[in-house]
Amino acid sequence: MKIESVDLFYFALPQIKDQADGSQDSFIVRVRSDTGLEGVGESDASPFVSIASFVTPKSHSVLVNINEHLIGQTLDEPADVPRIWKEVDYHSMDIAQLPHAYAAADIALWDLLGRHLNQPVYELLGATRAHPKRAYASVLFEDTPEQTEALARQCVEAGYTAAKFGWGPMGRRGEDYDIALVRHARKGLGDDAALMIDAGTIWGGDWQTALKRAEAFAEFNPTWLEEPLHREDVPAYAKLCAKSPVPIAGGEGANRVREAEDLLTNGGVSFLQIDPGRIGGITPSVRTFELTNEHGAVWVNHTYKSRISLAAAMCVHVGDERHPWLEYCESGSDLLEKLVDTPIGIDAQGMVTLPATPGIGVTPSLGKAREYAKRVTMTVDGRTVGASCETF
Amino acid sequence: MKIESVDLFYFALPQIKDQADGSQDSFIVRVRSDTGLEGVGESDASPFVSIASFVTPKSHSVLVNINEHLIGQTLDEPADVPRIWKEVDYHSMDIAQLPHAYAAADIALWDLLGRHLNQPVYELLGATRAHPKRAYASVLFEDTPEQTEALARQCVEAGYTAAKFGWGPMGRRGEDYDIALVRHARKGLGDDAALMIDAGTIWGGDWQTALKRAEAFAEFNPTWLEEPLHREDVPAYAKLCAKSPVPIAGGEGANRVREAEDLLTNGGVSFLQIDPGRIGGITPSVRTFELTNEHGAVWVNHTYKSRISLAAAMCVHVGDERHPWLEYCESGSDLLEKLVDTPIGIDAQGMVTLPATPGIGVTPSLGKAREYAKRVTMTVDGRTVGASCETF
Repeated sequence: MKIESVDLFYFALPQIKDQADGSQDSFIVRVRSDTGLEGVGESDASPFVSIASFVTPKSHSVLVNINEHLIGQTLDEPADVPRIWKEVDYHSMDIAQLPHAYAAADIALWDLLGRHLNQPVYELLGATRAHPKRAYASVLFEDTPEQTEALARQCVEAGYTAAKFGWGPMGRRGEDYDIALVRHARKGLGDDAALMIDAGTIWGGDWQTALKRAEAFAEFNPTWLEEPLHREDVPAYAKLCAKSPVPIAGGEGANRVREAEDLLTNGGVSFLQIDPGRIGGITPSVRTFELTNEHGAVWVNHTYKSRISLAAAMCVHVGDERHPWLEYCESGSDLLEKLVDTPIGIDAQGMVTLPATPGIGVTPSLGKAREYAKRVTMTVDGRTVGASCETF
Repeated sequence: MKIESVDLFYFALPQIKDQADGSQDSFIVRVRSDTGLEGVGESDASPFVSIASFVTPKSHSVLVNINEHLIGQTLDEPADVPRIWKEVDYHSMDIAQLPHAYAAADIALWDLLGRHLNQPVYELLGATRAHPKRAYASVLFEDTPEQTEALARQCVEAGYTAAKFGWGPMGRRGEDYDIALVRHARKGLGDDAALMIDAGTIWGGDWQTALKRAEAFAEFNPTWLEEPLHREDVPAYAKLCAKSPVPIAGGEGANRVREAEDLLTNGGVSFLQIDPGRIGGITPSVRTFELTNEHGAVWVNHTYKSRISLAAAMCVHVGDERHPWLEYCESGSDLLEKLVDTPIGIDAQGMVTLPATPGIGVTPSLGKAREYAKRVTMTVDGRTVGASCETF
């Protein structure tokens, strides 16, 4: 089949809070083929900057917009998706936003191909079955240790067997406060649930302070300490990872496969957290998944968008039981509910199973989120070059 | 002083040719302070996607547009520029386009500060004088070896003592053609001029073919072979650099300091080519310059935009004679002539000296390029959130 159209959607809640909560908006790409089928994907990226990347006027032969090399492509078999990826990447190599913007399109192409071939995407990627994954409720630290403890309790009451707390006051009010936050998170979870800590890059290049915190947090038995350091400071990660009593996780900032490989092989992280919605989609994510197997690390999804992103990420690792974890966004954003019709929730054991349906595993329902759709228009010299789609 | 306004400009030639010629358009940022002074910078990036990055609606606390944390900043001394950089980078960490877009702003801040303190920027960066740099005419391979030879002859006749040929048919028509291109480039230059070859990432991850070419090119005594491999394939660079008889150059694709450091320390390139207009401006470029000194490599500018970019890049390395080369764009684009009033051309020895004037060293003349200005408007829900500046 041929790709006939590419529709771009920007959804956002009416009020954007000043929190590191990525579920407040969404960039969605819908691709349609000449068979009448469609596929949908989502990026974890600025919808506005990403729309610009699909429609920007050409600067030169390797700074060409995404639509130019996407519309008209032939898509018949799995090998076509990486081929299209490579072609777009070559011709857009000088758009730094490319992986963020194109991610949604790559996911949409896989979704479309799965529907065309009547197969789940994970099967197209070589998996024989979708193993259930153990969900950790992914939430932000509350402002106080006591509020954090209450939130932890809510997570357990909701049926989770694991929870990750991140950002908020962590690293901003001194060592005692940091430890109190973790102590109360553990207290709220009880001894049985897994606890993860996400420091949101707060210690920059200061690996000694990060190590000191890891040592202090160890008594609360966290499964990992995530992004304690600046994403670019791989030498500092190497020093920390060599000494930390708590396994170190990172990788959500990787926009390219090499950045993930660098953090894994030179930084030494134990858990590599990849967001298919940032690194360019399912295609490059699969390569990072292979790298974790080659280097004895564990692949974890980074997902703080809708269940479209959750399903796309699961396509990467559901086939392999050695990678047990699933980041499951529990922000309460109404977008999480509205954008897909398929419930992919936790079961009685706190596990999530990806539906074995054709495509990435969810049924989008963009029209249900219509109230959150933003209308974008972009013009050059009075001519409209790009606009958000208003047909759901 | 305080930053009061940020103006965004998009210039482009009327016809964009399908060549890897970045001088066909330009993204310019002008910052003005409450003292009435202004500074100007340029990115090597999509103007359209970059404008979107300055004005995009907020997605969450660390996906905020550039203007939000730039306008209103205090700028009084050199330490303020990296401080502002860090603040913007933190709050825009999830905009992949950030370094491309912000580059022009960082350069503009240095330019403004130099004018405010009445000093050349290279002095603010610690250099005591501006050493002349040896310019290599940076041109593209012509379609045939014979045309390339004629172009090489023109470069020598124009007074250059060095020339670099890149992209075009290199790597696309087989080994014999590749060698013929280099042989004729050398023939046109004569034995005395330096010759550089830029393969434009054409051999992807195939370091063996790149090595074979390097071995074949060696008899023509190239100063370096540039970007033979895909920018992300650092392990392939490591294999090639360990064996190549011709020094390997690369780095223009680095959008972050870590990417440059990775290519240098893990890839092993001898020449690190950094575009301040891509990596986020002069501030992060200075860090890459320090890295070349720490690792015994040579820093070279990548510049294929106007003389604003040329001057900005020179601020990084003019203070140090150990880094002798200067990429000097010879594309013939009228934008190169119109955007600045200062001639920074080669002297009788083929050298270029950066003027010792306050700021980055050039006097912008945006009004002279008025005919090439593109009008951009970007709206969300009918409200204009961004537009190109039409006051020159």
